[in-house]
Amino acid sequence: MPTRRNPFNTTMAEIANPIFRRPLAAPSADPGRAITFGEQQPLQLDSGRTLAPLTVAYKTYGELNRAKSNAVMVCHALTGDQFAAGRHPVTGKRGWWDMMIGSGKPIDTDRFFVICPNVIGGCMGTTGPADNDPATGQPFGLSFPLITIRDMVRAQAMLLDALGIETLLCVLGGSMGGMQALQWAASFPERVVSAVPIAAAARHSAQNIAFHEVGRQAIMADPEWRNGEYAVHGTKPSKGLAVARMAAHITYLSETALQRKFGRTLQNRNSFSFAFSPDFQIESYLHHQGISFVDRFDANSYLYITRAMDYFDIAADYGGSLAEAFRDVRTRFCIVSFTSDWLFPTAENKRIAHALNAAAANVSFVEIETDRGHDSFLLDEQELFATITSFLGSVASRAGVA
Amino acid sequence: MPTRRNPFNTTMAEIANPIFRRPLAAPSADPGRAITFGEQQPLQLDSGRTLAPLTVAYKTYGELNRAKSNAVMVCHALTGDQFAAGRHPVTGKRGWWDMMIGSGKPIDTDRFFVICPNVIGGCMGTTGPADNDPATGQPFGLSFPLITIRDMVRAQAMLLDALGIETLLCVLGGSMGGMQALQWAASFPERVVSAVPIAAAARHSAQNIAFHEVGRQAIMADPEWRNGEYAVHGTKPSKGLAVARMAAHITYLSETALQRKFGRTLQNRNSFSFAFSPDFQIESYLHHQGISFVDRFDANSYLYITRAMDYFDIAADYGGSLAEAFRDVRTRFCIVSFTSDWLFPTAENKRIAHALNAAAANVSFVEIETDRGHDSFLLDEQELFATITSFLGSVASRAGVA
Repeated sequence: MPTRRNPFNTTMAEIANPIFRRPLAAPSADPGRAITFGEQQPLQLDSGRTLAPLTVAYKTYGELNRAKSNAVMVCHALTGDQFAAGRHPVTGKRGWWDMMIGSGKPIDTDRFFVICPNVIGGCMGTTGPADNDPATGQPFGLSFPLITIRDMVRAQAMLLDALGIETLLCVLGGSMGGMQALQWAASFPERVVSAVPIAAAARHSAQNIAFHEVGRQAIMADPEWRNGEYAVHGTKPSKGLAVARMAAHITYLSETALQRKFGRTLQNRNSFSFAFSPDFQIESYLHHQGISFVDRFDANSYLYITRAMDYFDIAADYGGSLAEAFRDVRTRFCIVSFTSDWLFPTAENKRIAHALNAAAANVSFVEIETDRGHDSFLLDEQELFATITSFLGSVASRAGVA
Repeated sequence: MPTRRNPFNTTMAEIANPIFRRPLAAPSADPGRAITFGEQQPLQLDSGRTLAPLTVAYKTYGELNRAKSNAVMVCHALTGDQFAAGRHPVTGKRGWWDMMIGSGKPIDTDRFFVICPNVIGGCMGTTGPADNDPATGQPFGLSFPLITIRDMVRAQAMLLDALGIETLLCVLGGSMGGMQALQWAASFPERVVSAVPIAAAARHSAQNIAFHEVGRQAIMADPEWRNGEYAVHGTKPSKGLAVARMAAHITYLSETALQRKFGRTLQNRNSFSFAFSPDFQIESYLHHQGISFVDRFDANSYLYITRAMDYFDIAADYGGSLAEAFRDVRTRFCIVSFTSDWLFPTAENKRIAHALNAAAANVSFVEIETDRGHDSFLLDEQELFATITSFLGSVASRAGVA
């Protein structure tokens, strides 16, 4: 196991990503890497607790230039992970931003060095509730500390330190990834040249919290959840997690898109079954979303990460003023929203833009016309690609990145 | 047990409402009445199956005039029941339309004879899955036949026959109640002088079906559901039903109303608990909605009635043409929608109005400006009260009702 020096001058282990514990659907795919920070470098959490040791799993794309000026951090959403581009080693599918990241793509790996970390609390190699608690040798379960978006960003900053990179040319992400991009600019403004929060918000709304609480209750209502200790019991709260995913998935799409894509079309039948089997295509689709999700995601991670999003409210950390969070920040912002996104609607994104304007920050705001809802940031939205291409190009040119 | 003649010239029993099986929170409240149709009068269902014997529980308000021309039918929504006005004998609370129905109220019981039946499949006295199957002597559970909105209306027509009433001056209802009002006009146009569907739709959309399927899956994922036979086992799928209710309840409100009413306000605390207990008011509110619901509603009824709504698509019964459903219908319509209702949005209500126009029907359309979402039809919306008052007044005057 190779070791390397980190900026705290303590020893840490850089290891192959522990996702190798899991069966790989695409064994030839790059599993990424992971860095473990030891007991001497505890992650200070907003809850007052600490996390140590801490492993941060991550994936990189492209090459860091000599000036270390071309690093771009990509932050994933609630159920995403570090495998943004290329083939996912666990699912065997294309990464969630494979259309965005790569040679000649909007985040051009011929020009930029892309770092995508798995968030703390996650289940793809970074320390989370499924990992063993060193104090007990058993999986953390609910003894894992509650985390915040700011904690996630702190862990990412430790990773950046460990990689010897001072400054990010850009930090980008959609949904919870956009929350992290905002938090990066608020917490470490001197390290962030530019930030692109997409389909995000500076706070989780009452409706957002409500939907998350439904998902958590669905998981916790599943007797196989066993108060979070399902791993010890050899069970899995699959039904509860599937219900949580189904409910959430509806919120990622728009009513219009659902109607166009599925409408009232029946699934492999000409008339109603007059039974409770899935008659409609939309039902089969939702079932598929639920079932495939439980294969790749940990139920406790879902609890922890949704809670982190609920707690997110940047303004609250600055006396209730969102503008104050970005006072004297020199980061350039590009805020992106989608017209049909009702989960993180344009209005919430405009609040960010207004606050940045009030803080005299450098901000552009792009609202993209689409009927595909919140998940538009994951789809082939040409206007999004064009926006990222031109914004990153402009930022790179100003920064003298070739 | 008194008996009375019905239009099919068979004997049926008119009985005190069987909700008396349940403990009453308000024993002094009027429990309503119920009529049982015997084996000789089976209800023909859209599934091809029949239901007999069939009990229809109902409540009336006001007095039928001599000409029997002042009967108004009020149809309840998914989780409503016949106790629209006055005190509810089971919950002890005010009826769901107590602001609408009564002396001097929009549906003025000094002038109109109001009939409010519990739908088939329900759990407040009308035959539903919790009742005993005469074939087995055990609760129906999933052996209860699947039902449709049209079946509900057929049962209501049988009730009307039994009461000796030929014509309804008006049939009104919100949400699923509005679906029934539309179905009444389509199925029995000659019996319906006027109809007021509020916050309704002529079909259930893909998004509507999706949310219902999440609720059903939450119920069926609860091991205490026991494939629908929980009554036999002496259990109740309370957790699953509570999750279903919580998810549905979010859809009944608007994002704006949730933000205004709850925002990110914490529940009896000044800072986050950093635990999974409900920190936010919106979470406590949702929990309350879930818990209080399971006390008053049957899980299998929830499955059956949501399915009936999913199956609802009037146009499908008329070769795909909504206008065709109302061809030559002389019923006067007043279609009401609410601006912030995203479950049954104005666009769906306008579809109905357009179809009625295309069928040269007599239709007015009222969109009420409010930010309180779908549930506005249950709230103190003065514009709704004014609309109902004037429409009913106009219809009554034309019909010569004093």
